[in-house]
Amino acid sequence: MAQRTEPARGMRDFLPEDIRRREYVIGIVKRVYERYGFEPLETPAVENIETLLGKYGEEGNQLIFKILMRGEHEASGKADLALRYDLTVPLARVVAQYQSKLPRLFNRYQIQPVWRADRPARGRFREFYQCDVDSLGSTSPVVEAGLCAAVSDALTQLGFSDFVIRINHRELLTSILSRSGIGAHQHGDALIALDKLDKIGPEGVDNDLANRGIEEQARNALLQVFISRASMNHVAAFVKGDTPGEAAVANLQAIAELTAQTSAAGKIAFDASLARGLSYYTGAIMEINVADLAGSLGGGGRYDNLVGMFLGQNVPACGFSLGLERILVVMGERNMFPLTLMTTPADVMIATFDAAGASAAMRFAATLRGAGLRVLVYPDPEKIGKQIKYADSRGIPFVALLGENEIESSTVTVKHLAAQTQETWHQSDAAAKILEGLKQRG
Amino acid sequence: MAQRTEPARGMRDFLPEDIRRREYVIGIVKRVYERYGFEPLETPAVENIETLLGKYGEEGNQLIFKILMRGEHEASGKADLALRYDLTVPLARVVAQYQSKLPRLFNRYQIQPVWRADRPARGRFREFYQCDVDSLGSTSPVVEAGLCAAVSDALTQLGFSDFVIRINHRELLTSILSRSGIGAHQHGDALIALDKLDKIGPEGVDNDLANRGIEEQARNALLQVFISRASMNHVAAFVKGDTPGEAAVANLQAIAELTAQTSAAGKIAFDASLARGLSYYTGAIMEINVADLAGSLGGGGRYDNLVGMFLGQNVPACGFSLGLERILVVMGERNMFPLTLMTTPADVMIATFDAAGASAAMRFAATLRGAGLRVLVYPDPEKIGKQIKYADSRGIPFVALLGENEIESSTVTVKHLAAQTQETWHQSDAAAKILEGLKQRG
Repeated sequence: MAQRTEPARGMRDFLPEDIRRREYVIGIVKRVYERYGFEPLETPAVENIETLLGKYGEEGNQLIFKILMRGEHEASGKADLALRYDLTVPLARVVAQYQSKLPRLFNRYQIQPVWRADRPARGRFREFYQCDVDSLGSTSPVVEAGLCAAVSDALTQLGFSDFVIRINHRELLTSILSRSGIGAHQHGDALIALDKLDKIGPEGVDNDLANRGIEEQARNALLQVFISRASMNHVAAFVKGDTPGEAAVANLQAIAELTAQTSAAGKIAFDASLARGLSYYTGAIMEINVADLAGSLGGGGRYDNLVGMFLGQNVPACGFSLGLERILVVMGERNMFPLTLMTTPADVMIATFDAAGASAAMRFAATLRGAGLRVLVYPDPEKIGKQIKYADSRGIPFVALLGENEIESSTVTVKHLAAQTQETWHQSDAAAKILEGLKQRG
Repeated sequence: MAQRTEPARGMRDFLPEDIRRREYVIGIVKRVYERYGFEPLETPAVENIETLLGKYGEEGNQLIFKILMRGEHEASGKADLALRYDLTVPLARVVAQYQSKLPRLFNRYQIQPVWRADRPARGRFREFYQCDVDSLGSTSPVVEAGLCAAVSDALTQLGFSDFVIRINHRELLTSILSRSGIGAHQHGDALIALDKLDKIGPEGVDNDLANRGIEEQARNALLQVFISRASMNHVAAFVKGDTPGEAAVANLQAIAELTAQTSAAGKIAFDASLARGLSYYTGAIMEINVADLAGSLGGGGRYDNLVGMFLGQNVPACGFSLGLERILVVMGERNMFPLTLMTTPADVMIATFDAAGASAAMRFAATLRGAGLRVLVYPDPEKIGKQIKYADSRGIPFVALLGENEIESSTVTVKHLAAQTQETWHQSDAAAKILEGLKQRG
């Protein structure tokens, strides 16, 4: 009896064509990150469960995949391990664990999958890749500007030109909330409501705030700042006199000025309503959007206290995460992948005439591979017509025929399928001829 | 209160230096596999638990990491998902699921981590990468020879020259067991015992066989074949007249003949005692060893019935798996990594004089990055001596100084740390000069 064959709910198999697109994007992102001095890091898929619990808010906690304890405790149903939920908390753990081995300024990138037990939906998966880039060790706005430049450069190299990096500041939000007359104990609630502005609109947020017990006057003051998409000057006036609020404005202005010198010039836009869901942010927060995608392509911010939860002493930190799956969705819809992305399994297929000829085929394949060609040896001595048809169906441009005559004279007959031509060459010339033929195809 | 910071038991964090070594090996293995016409595939880390249970034998079942069911059932302690245990069973599932989309001859490689709840030990981890290469759709010995050539080529390109690919055949083992007088119902037990020959020696195997109820005469006949490391001719004589045994010998001879034409020439050695633990093998089985490693660098074999467990109809299949972690261990011990493996985070660091100079630093960094250089901007305007010391400690070869004078005259002063020289160039010349300097360093 056959078993179920689909992947687990919300998970995906990636066939060769998918992988080539994924590797194309990952390759560009890595190369750009490395140009900005970021170094690669990888952490295990599985973490101790305490490492993850309590870092992502209550909703996050519930979306963590938990792994059963082993051995005699398995029957108890207790979980002691969990699947990586993001790349930031493991980074904080790593910085605490290897502090003496890591440089004072640690710039790392990390491109790995994370798992969330979200309800699967169009474009939302339970296993998805994040491309994270983080700088640890400095509070300078040069860090934020460098991160914005790096992700902007990565997106530009991928062919995006129309994205916007919205930027805001957690301390500025706090200041606006206070000035609106919302007590500190309600700030968390208010931010959760605000974070939904794009999804549920101003009325929805107003209702949500009311349900959370925030009074009408405060709601009105707050929503006025956010709905009007107030300018930086407007907001600066609103928080004037509140020291942390003024410092946040100055920080945002410094970041904007530095960013203007980079590849992110013209891409940055202040948005007082940007809240970002995660609770660990402490300073500037950023999010990247394009018009034809409901969610964001990526986001990030400063989180100066997270490492302290592991280390016992704070380390300044700021990071950005690009969502690989969403980038791939938009690039697919917009036809942004280069046509040259390799789509054939081989450059040349060697047909097999009979069991005796297979040895000659293997030997000739080794020669062609030595010259850098991708070579498939057809394994079964089926009718040559059938073999050629197979090569054609796979988009393999050249088929090499090694019959008795060819073997005897150390020659090979090579068919160029698209051109419908065939030529007989000395075997030692074939690699160069085929390479030349491939170059002409472009 | 600070939290635990070490990775979960048996799991590892990979710092930048580790990643560079891993990516170096993976890059070579991929490139070689692609030259053999193999295409990339990836499957999810998480599988439905039924997909994995019952495929790896009883011991394997117990080593599968199980994931708690979610929602209201979480309290029940029931697991409905599990972590990938190898790359072969998911491949069989994929072939059954996408049969109509996949080519008739499907050659795929897959390089991903797997998870096993083994007791951690030196060189044995609970998360480790496998580099698998499999051919589906043909029973021809060209397949086995191609696989041996591909892994042999990969190891050779990595710098190995002293490995041996031991080869045997499951049907030949069956034939030998029958000829030794062991009943078919005891073959599984006997193979499990035999698989330990290298670890526990002939006496250990003899005891194990005795404990499993196999009689002395049969044990003696069997061990004589295995301990003597009998030649192919000797074994062929032993099974003469048993049709499946004779067919297995002929198959092994065909594989050996074809392999002799490839990069695996001289690397293949028949070993009648090779058993391989996994239960799904049906034909030729292979294992790669080097003298200075107790375990194997990789192994594989033909498994013509596994896809049938998912599809309801069999698809011929054969594969090879290289163990990334063991390859890395041996390469590390033997100093096989090239010295040129990039070990610095950047080619040039731009020092920061003051907050005002940071803008100029960001702009100059963008220019250098545009020319392909890896550039770090030091984020804080600390003492220049401290900044230079930092660059030196990170192995960054060049430091660019942009003081007031330089900014005004569009020049830059560049220190070459190793040479202890410094020169002032026009900013627009700097990228070319630094690239030249890097080339001279080699």
